[in-house]
Amino acid sequence: MSAAFDAVDLIRAKRDGRSLSGEAIDWLVDAYTRGAVADEQMSAYLMAVVWRGMSPAELARWTGAMIDSGERLDLAGVGRPTVDKHSTGGVGDKVSLALVPLVAACGVAVPQLSGRGLGHTGGTLDKMESIPGWRADLPLGRMRRQLGEIGAVICAAGAGLAPADRRLYALRDVTGTVESIPLIASSIMSKKIAEGTSALVLDVKVGSGAFMTSAGEARELARTMVGLGAAAGVRTEALLTAMDSPLGRTAGNALEVAEAVDVLRGGGPADVVEVTVALARLMLDLAGADSGTGAGGPTPDPAEVLARGEAYPVWRAMVAAQGGDPDAALPRASTVETVPAPASGYLTRLDARAVGVAAWRLGAGRARKEDAVSAAAGVRWLAGVGDPVEAGRPLLELHTDDPATFDRARVALTGAIAVGPAPPAATPLVLGRVR
Amino acid sequence: MSAAFDAVDLIRAKRDGRSLSGEAIDWLVDAYTRGAVADEQMSAYLMAVVWRGMSPAELARWTGAMIDSGERLDLAGVGRPTVDKHSTGGVGDKVSLALVPLVAACGVAVPQLSGRGLGHTGGTLDKMESIPGWRADLPLGRMRRQLGEIGAVICAAGAGLAPADRRLYALRDVTGTVESIPLIASSIMSKKIAEGTSALVLDVKVGSGAFMTSAGEARELARTMVGLGAAAGVRTEALLTAMDSPLGRTAGNALEVAEAVDVLRGGGPADVVEVTVALARLMLDLAGADSGTGAGGPTPDPAEVLARGEAYPVWRAMVAAQGGDPDAALPRASTVETVPAPASGYLTRLDARAVGVAAWRLGAGRARKEDAVSAAAGVRWLAGVGDPVEAGRPLLELHTDDPATFDRARVALTGAIAVGPAPPAATPLVLGRVR
Repeated sequence: MSAAFDAVDLIRAKRDGRSLSGEAIDWLVDAYTRGAVADEQMSAYLMAVVWRGMSPAELARWTGAMIDSGERLDLAGVGRPTVDKHSTGGVGDKVSLALVPLVAACGVAVPQLSGRGLGHTGGTLDKMESIPGWRADLPLGRMRRQLGEIGAVICAAGAGLAPADRRLYALRDVTGTVESIPLIASSIMSKKIAEGTSALVLDVKVGSGAFMTSAGEARELARTMVGLGAAAGVRTEALLTAMDSPLGRTAGNALEVAEAVDVLRGGGPADVVEVTVALARLMLDLAGADSGTGAGGPTPDPAEVLARGEAYPVWRAMVAAQGGDPDAALPRASTVETVPAPASGYLTRLDARAVGVAAWRLGAGRARKEDAVSAAAGVRWLAGVGDPVEAGRPLLELHTDDPATFDRARVALTGAIAVGPAPPAATPLVLGRVR
Repeated sequence: MSAAFDAVDLIRAKRDGRSLSGEAIDWLVDAYTRGAVADEQMSAYLMAVVWRGMSPAELARWTGAMIDSGERLDLAGVGRPTVDKHSTGGVGDKVSLALVPLVAACGVAVPQLSGRGLGHTGGTLDKMESIPGWRADLPLGRMRRQLGEIGAVICAAGAGLAPADRRLYALRDVTGTVESIPLIASSIMSKKIAEGTSALVLDVKVGSGAFMTSAGEARELARTMVGLGAAAGVRTEALLTAMDSPLGRTAGNALEVAEAVDVLRGGGPADVVEVTVALARLMLDLAGADSGTGAGGPTPDPAEVLARGEAYPVWRAMVAAQGGDPDAALPRASTVETVPAPASGYLTRLDARAVGVAAWRLGAGRARKEDAVSAAAGVRWLAGVGDPVEAGRPLLELHTDDPATFDRARVALTGAIAVGPAPPAATPLVLGRVR
């Protein structure tokens, strides 16, 4: 660190709409991580950022300072090109579970260092942990070896990656400063850049069940993150994908693992397959710059690899390498209730957010980061938007081990379902690409 | 307190520009005072207020909640009408010292509960404490008795008055959230309303040496405070007064006491007399609604009372009642250096802020609230704006007990002085009245 700054001066500068120098940003992030800038000062600064934003230069420096607060992994020794994917979070989004083995099966290694879910969108680690024996924590040496041998890793990001983000995220959570594109972008990208991947595909969800409900905001977030990746030497692109309805037919940890296994064996819901393949193609594209020689031969088409079930053995090896039993029965809820279709006709609406909140209340998600989640709890829908339904016949299954949660789950679903005389016009799942 | 609220919800509401309900504001102020809302949450909320402001209804409720966090004094038993004055702070502003005894000499009691100075403007208590033996702390019973018997009290506001403001002010100081009209107005008015005065005159300073450098902002602050006073049943008006040049001829604790005594004995600088008389007239005006019978006879003209030295015995009684010796010699600095006039001609500029900062650096003020101040340190200027000066002859005296401070004081004065061939056009001291 160079000069010392005064925290109040920096807060006032941002409050008044001025940009901070690179040195000031380095100092602020470092001083906060060391505890020399107090939580109440940083939260005031963050609220000023929500108000005033950050210039591109400020944001790149802020993200760099967060990366520099910890270690940056070096995956050069893995012997394969690397590419990762990050989703901004959606309901029923089990895409990573099929995608990571699929891309590995196509010859490119995927080092997916992940976090846990908070709120109504589930976390990938929570889903994987419903597999008996599977452990999220993986020492760095084993992670590198698994990446070289199997090509697929899903594990917990260690505390050494971007520790500044860890503190900042916890602070933002309690101070109403989560909703800021530069703060969201820097939080995601600092961890992904620190993880050492050479390429990155972002799945930016748009719609009622997503963090970004409007396409404009989602596109701005995507552009911001793509810019940060490029500035840090990580080839980065983004897909905008629809999240007004939940993905697939299930939301909940073990329920989603079972669905991902269906996809890996060549079946599964069409929408999950479509998003998985679109992301895989883009990941292989971005990794291609390295893989021309590394992967050998022409790049296989992930749609065919998936349909032929060729990613499934990679999944089994990935699960087993982290202590999981890919053949074990998954946890099942002790109680299942159903919600009937309110009318006969075609399902025209199944609100993603409502389904996510219902699954959360049934026990699939956590309200605070120290809470445990239920592996078995969740929601299964027996029809998707556009499918015919019959009045009074079961439309949703609510799964839980705690029947006391049914009432609150049903309340969350109020207004979430609509049935009409004809199927709605089909809307695309992939809404755009940002590069 | 009625319902419980969630701090994050309230921060988000303010951040998004929504108004808070009265119940939510009551809860927030109370929960913060109790420690149930954390400093980092309140500072984020305060920054959102700097950004979004408060509606008049929100501000009145916020101020009320701050008052309700402590006790509200009842001065009905004093037997005289009461009126107080508050200045937003200026350089060389020793007006309270002469004004409080003057208004008392005119038959109206002044309960001036005061704070200490922070930064480049001095505090009234710091000035009074340069009088040997004088004590700022006064138990409530003695305060009431002194108010009835002498009519004049300047003392420290007890910790029981608006304790929420005490915590909020300390938090704002370190989080860059001082500069907000609703936050400034509620901080001042909560303490003044809690002190129990039935009328209040605000001296809102405008100019380089003041907190508000533009007349527009000063007027908005004045209007906001007058509105809060009226809403709480305290007759309140404000004068806007100029603070581009410092008041009188001295800035510093004992130096200002000596100057105030000159004014009380019928002399002193014309500008101090003018502001003191203007404020006294307005205070007597506002108290008049009560004093028609209480004070007996026609209200005396404060200009005449002051000129005849009739307020001086009240000053002596007030000082003595709090342990001070009105005849004791005031502390004098061990070292005095001079700053010469840079040219011959007329003084066209003497910057209030620069003089204030110089006095502060010489030891007259404090940077943190736990610092001690020097009674003797300060600045005396031998000519005011418009007076003739001669190149090389002393223009300023710098007083200190710590000669190491001279250099920093001289740096503060860079560019503060200008001399021209003719005196500048006269500008009024009283710029406006807000009722």
